Amino acid sequence: MSRLHALYQVRAAAADIDMRAQALALEQSIEMPLAPVTSDFVRQEVVATVQSVVETAPGCFAVMLGIATATTGGEIGQTMNMLFGNCSLQNDVELVDVGLPDDFLAAYAGPRHGLAGLRACVGAGKRALTMTALKPQGLSAADLGVLCGTFAEAGLDIIKDDHGIANQAYSPFAARVASCQAALRRANAATGGRSVYAPSLSGGPRQLREQLKIVREEGVGMVLACPMLMGLACFQEIVEHDLDCPVLAHPALGGAVRIHPPLLFGRLFRLLGADATIFPNYGGRFSYSRATCEALAHAARAPWQSLRPIAPVPAGGMNVERVPEMIEFYGRDVILLIGGALLSAGKELAARSRAFVDTVRMVSERKTDDDDQTPSRPHR
Amino acid sequence: MSRLHALYQVRAAAADIDMRAQALALEQSIEMPLAPVTSDFVRQEVVATVQSVVETAPGCFAVMLGIATATTGGEIGQTMNMLFGNCSLQNDVELVDVGLPDDFLAAYAGPRHGLAGLRACVGAGKRALTMTALKPQGLSAADLGVLCGTFAEAGLDIIKDDHGIANQAYSPFAARVASCQAALRRANAATGGRSVYAPSLSGGPRQLREQLKIVREEGVGMVLACPMLMGLACFQEIVEHDLDCPVLAHPALGGAVRIHPPLLFGRLFRLLGADATIFPNYGGRFSYSRATCEALAHAARAPWQSLRPIAPVPAGGMNVERVPEMIEFYGRDVILLIGGALLSAGKELAARSRAFVDTVRMVSERKTDDDDQTPSRPHR
Repeated sequence: MSRLHALYQVRAAAADIDMRAQALALEQSIEMPLAPVTSDFVRQEVVATVQSVVETAPGCFAVMLGIATATTGGEIGQTMNMLFGNCSLQNDVELVDVGLPDDFLAAYAGPRHGLAGLRACVGAGKRALTMTALKPQGLSAADLGVLCGTFAEAGLDIIKDDHGIANQAYSPFAARVASCQAALRRANAATGGRSVYAPSLSGGPRQLREQLKIVREEGVGMVLACPMLMGLACFQEIVEHDLDCPVLAHPALGGAVRIHPPLLFGRLFRLLGADATIFPNYGGRFSYSRATCEALAHAARAPWQSLRPIAPVPAGGMNVERVPEMIEFYGRDVILLIGGALLSAGKELAARSRAFVDTVRMVSERKTDDDDQTPSRPHR
Repeated sequence: MSRLHALYQVRAAAADIDMRAQALALEQSIEMPLAPVTSDFVRQEVVATVQSVVETAPGCFAVMLGIATATTGGEIGQTMNMLFGNCSLQNDVELVDVGLPDDFLAAYAGPRHGLAGLRACVGAGKRALTMTALKPQGLSAADLGVLCGTFAEAGLDIIKDDHGIANQAYSPFAARVASCQAALRRANAATGGRSVYAPSLSGGPRQLREQLKIVREEGVGMVLACPMLMGLACFQEIVEHDLDCPVLAHPALGGAVRIHPPLLFGRLFRLLGADATIFPNYGGRFSYSRATCEALAHAARAPWQSLRPIAPVPAGGMNVERVPEMIEFYGRDVILLIGGALLSAGKELAARSRAFVDTVRMVSERKTDDDDQTPSRPHR
C-alpha cells in the first residue's frame, strides 16, 4: 500500500520529539490513541508512520510521516485534511513538503496547458511573458474595458482582473467580461497581436456555473482563480470539468507561513491544474525571501511525472526597472506581472506599458537556452 | 456607504506604523498606489480607510480598517479576500476581528437551527449535549454501524463521523450512511431515545451533490462539514440551498494563529449557517488558551442581530473526568465532544459512554439558569 511522504517542521524539546512525532502521526491519521485499535488493517495500513526525525536546528525538527494514500479517498480536500487538517491548529507544526506516490498522482491530470500552452496562446516563442492587472476595483465595466484596450494595444500578453475584482455592483462579472473582451478584440484586430484577457472567477458553485457559462459564450481566453478562496476541491473540479482555457492561480488567503509556499502555490496548485501560479516576489511588499521564490519557481517548473511545467508569476510591487534582474533570476520561463507601477504612469500609461513589453522582449532575446534555469532535481 | 470594520494586529516599529497601516488599507482594497487614482468614487467609497491605530504592546499595534461593504460583492469568498486575501501573505499581520454592518448582515440568514434547534432535535431541555465521533478511519461501513449503534444505545445525543472519514474505499459514504442510520434507528427504537448520526461531507461540488442526495434519502438528522476544506462559499451555499438538517462545523485546515479563532470558528462559521462549531478545548492536545476558548464560545452564543446562537463544541483530548470542569467553564449551552477517550475503554465502551451521558445530565441538573454564561456584550 502506497503512502504520501509528508514533511513537517516541528518545534519541540529534543527529549520530547519522538513522542511528539508519534502523536502527530496519530493526529494526522486515526486521531485517537493506538491502544484500543484492534483491527490489523487499521494498524498496518491506515495509521500514519513516522519515517524519520532529523534535528535541523536547536529545538527544530524535520519530521517525515508516511500517510496512507488510501486515507485521501482520491480527493484533494480530504488530502489536505490528511496533510494539515488538524495539525494546522497546532502552532508548533508547519507543513513543508510532500512526496506523492505514483498511484496518487495517476488520479490527477494536472495542468492542461502549462507554460508551453500559455506561450502558444499568446503566440510567444521562448521569451518571458508579460502580464498586468486591471485595477482599481470601483471602476465601471466600461472604464475597465478602456484600460484593457490600452494594455492590449501596448502588446501585453495577459491582462487579468485584479483579484479583488469579483462580482461587485460597480462592475458585475457579465458586463465586465463583455466590455473587456470587446476592447481586446478591437485592439488585437488593430495591432495583429494576440493579447488575452483573464477575468477573475468568484463565488460558490452556483455563481461559478454562471460565470463559466459567460466565459464560454464570450470566448474568454484565460481565467484567474483563487484556489484557497474557492476551495481546492472546487478549483480542481472546474479545471477538470468546466474550463477549456488556461487558468492562472492567485495565492489569496494562502497564508505566508504554516504551509510552505513552494508546496502550496507551486506543487499543489500545479497538481490541481493551474497553468500559472502568481506569488509575491522577493524585494516587493511581501515577505518572501529569494530562496522561497527560487524554490517556488522550481516547484512550478521542474519535471514531475506527466504533469506539465507551469509558469511562475512573481508579482507584488514590481516595476519595469526590475525586469532585467527578474529575468536574470527566473530565466525566460516566467511571466512577469506588473500592475500598480504601470497604472502609476497616469497619462503615460500606454508608453510605460509598451516599455514593459519591449524590455521583456529585449532582455529575453539576449538570453540563450543555457541561461534559463534548468531544474536540478525532479519532484516525486 | 457602509463599511466592515476589520481589526488587525500588526507588528511594526512605532515610527513606521502609520505608513504600514496606510499600506495595509491600500493592499486590502485597491491594491495599488493612491496617486494615479482619479475617480472620486474609488477614492471616497472604495479605498479602505484607517479608522484607528493603537499600540497594544511594544512594537504591536491594533489597526482598524474600514473596508467598503460594496467591495465584498455580497459573497463570502470575496469578503474573505477583502479581509485577509493578500495580507495573509504578509507575516506581520493577523486578522483579529471584524464588525459587520447591518446591510452586510442582511444578506446572511445564518444558522437555521442554532443551539435551540439542536436541543429540539435530540429532545434535550436545558442540559449540555453530548457528542462523540466514529473512529478510527479504516473500519468498514459495517463496523462503524456497530459502533454507532453502541453509542446510540448508550444515549449519546450526537454521533458524528470522525472528520478524517471521507469517501475512502474502505467505508464509502453511501454504504457508511446506510449502515450507521440503520443501526441508529434500531437503537433509538429499542431505547426510545433520539440520538442522531452526523456523517462527514467531503469533496467538490459534484461529489457533494451526490452526498447531499443520500443525506436526504436516508433521512439523516445532522451533518458534519469542514468549511475551510470545502471553501467558505461552497459551505454557505449548501447550507442555504441543499440542507434541511443542522450542520456541525469542523475547524480542519483553519490554522491556529493568523485568523483569530473566535472570529473564524465563532462568528464567521456562525454567519455562514453552522449550528455548532467544534474547536480545540484548552488543556487538550492543541494550543488554545482558556481566554481563546472563552472568546470563541462567546462569539458562538452572544446576541448578534437576528443570527441564532449556536453551540460551542470544545473537543480534542477530552475525557469524562473533565465534564464537571467543562460545564463549570462553558455553562450548559454547550456540546461536549469526547471521542478517543470513550473508544479507549475497549470492552467497556458502552459503560463509559453511558457514564459520559449520565455525568453530563447530572452535572447539568445541578446548574441553574444563572450559572450559564450570560454574554456580556453583543456582536456588531
